[in-house]
Amino acid sequence: MRILFCCTGTKAAPWLDGLRAALPGADIAEWVPGAPQADHAVVWAPPQQFLDEQPGLQALFNIGAGVDALLKLRLPPGALVVRLDDAGMSVQMAEYVCHAVIRHFREFDGYERDMAEGRWSYRKPRLRSEWPVGVLGLGVLGTRVAQALAQFEFPVHGWSRTPREVAGVTCHAGEAALPGFLAASRVLVNLLPLTPATENLLDRDTLGRLQPGGYLVNVARGAHLVEADLLALLDSGHLAGATIDVLREEPPPADHPFWRHPQITLTPHTSARTLREESIAQIAGKIRALGRGEPIAGIVDPSRGY
Amino acid sequence: MRILFCCTGTKAAPWLDGLRAALPGADIAEWVPGAPQADHAVVWAPPQQFLDEQPGLQALFNIGAGVDALLKLRLPPGALVVRLDDAGMSVQMAEYVCHAVIRHFREFDGYERDMAEGRWSYRKPRLRSEWPVGVLGLGVLGTRVAQALAQFEFPVHGWSRTPREVAGVTCHAGEAALPGFLAASRVLVNLLPLTPATENLLDRDTLGRLQPGGYLVNVARGAHLVEADLLALLDSGHLAGATIDVLREEPPPADHPFWRHPQITLTPHTSARTLREESIAQIAGKIRALGRGEPIAGIVDPSRGY
Repeated sequence: MRILFCCTGTKAAPWLDGLRAALPGADIAEWVPGAPQADHAVVWAPPQQFLDEQPGLQALFNIGAGVDALLKLRLPPGALVVRLDDAGMSVQMAEYVCHAVIRHFREFDGYERDMAEGRWSYRKPRLRSEWPVGVLGLGVLGTRVAQALAQFEFPVHGWSRTPREVAGVTCHAGEAALPGFLAASRVLVNLLPLTPATENLLDRDTLGRLQPGGYLVNVARGAHLVEADLLALLDSGHLAGATIDVLREEPPPADHPFWRHPQITLTPHTSARTLREESIAQIAGKIRALGRGEPIAGIVDPSRGY
Repeated sequence: MRILFCCTGTKAAPWLDGLRAALPGADIAEWVPGAPQADHAVVWAPPQQFLDEQPGLQALFNIGAGVDALLKLRLPPGALVVRLDDAGMSVQMAEYVCHAVIRHFREFDGYERDMAEGRWSYRKPRLRSEWPVGVLGLGVLGTRVAQALAQFEFPVHGWSRTPREVAGVTCHAGEAALPGFLAASRVLVNLLPLTPATENLLDRDTLGRLQPGGYLVNVARGAHLVEADLLALLDSGHLAGATIDVLREEPPPADHPFWRHPQITLTPHTSARTLREESIAQIAGKIRALGRGEPIAGIVDPSRGY
């Protein structure tokens, strides 16, 4: 077995060491142009040249949850595309989203300003019933996030393309149910995969359907959001704020309006990071399972895009 | 039945309206000096004069979780002291503590500074296994907090005076187990009742036993903490920071060092607020149960102090 590692922007050495320890006997190398043919690859945003040079690849293991960048490339015919499932990401995502929602709901950002100004302030407690949270996307990450929010007794709604059931979450499914889901939500958490169908989904129309004083948490992809529409809805007061972890261009240019917008909390694409040890263990386990002819989780359907 | 309302710093009208709606037929009034004798009282930090004038009170319902201030007063002989149990407080406490712990663990405060300076920063993900959290006090609030933290996969330890069992939490009990509990913890969350035995418990010795780079979340009472010792341990670098919701004097004087300490996040005693509707429903239910001779939860043992 020969495995190539081709992950842009990732230090290869610790991944190679970890993969070699997990898969003794496999021939594992970092890709260089002209490298001998391999049967498996571990990838993140690989160059087209790599894929073109390796027509014999049977499986591409993407070291992230989102495969939108990979699916834009010309892939080797017959290669499975496999995404990470969980591998320590869902708990990070639950943390990130709960922190953002609690911070906004409980006005901890406001208290921080009050304290900096020396004011021991009083703010009337908000009613949880007036802050329903909607989670767009009920895959591994969205389900975990919805359940974590429900634990804090927020009314939680979830939307997915195909019907799902999640304990403690009011589930909506399909295109036709989207307006009702949005109208039932005040805080919107986006955890959809990025596909041609979901690109630019968060626009003036959809965000405008949220309850007044709405709040957006975007932890999926920057291309889901029409940034100018978010700014307009913040200006109009329909939305109260947003927490944004992903942008169309990362890092955004210095003059990007999100950098210092008073109602936007920006983080550098850090909501759920790939954890090397968990990911190596998962990928090695899947490579062994494929070798035994067993089914594995996380195989992407390129026609759906996730 | 006659019920007096005597809550310092609380607008009486909405409480009186709510209590009257919940207990039709009862004679409910705000206390004024010389008011006729009552059998029940709803209190928060009442003046000694009120208690001295009302020797016939059978039960005092404290509209908060902590009864330390009330127990310092001379109480009518034979009056039960009843605290709120939960009444919407435990979910608030879980929110507050999870927000504080996640914010510190995930360095969201650091990212906020980076963003303000225009830096799309990279910070190495921290390992959850290196951030065990210890919860001091496993009553209604402490148990809920410990379980909420465990959901985010932190290793969670709990300490209580008498043995407890909480799913997903390593429980320690009794004085002799305290050093071991502290040594197993890096983040310490204080949810103890304030009693003569717990006053000044958080001092240089106990906080010094936390793992290096420790972090304190104090959401119980200001008098648990020796403030100068916290400052010394922050200066020495043994502790990395603290989130403080309670102080010996509230609001603290303008020159108090916690106001603008770079490693201390201060909030104005807002971690778990009394929610009027939930509290009225609970107190009315308990008054009716007492009237039927049934047992009620939340009766305080003055000799223990909680």
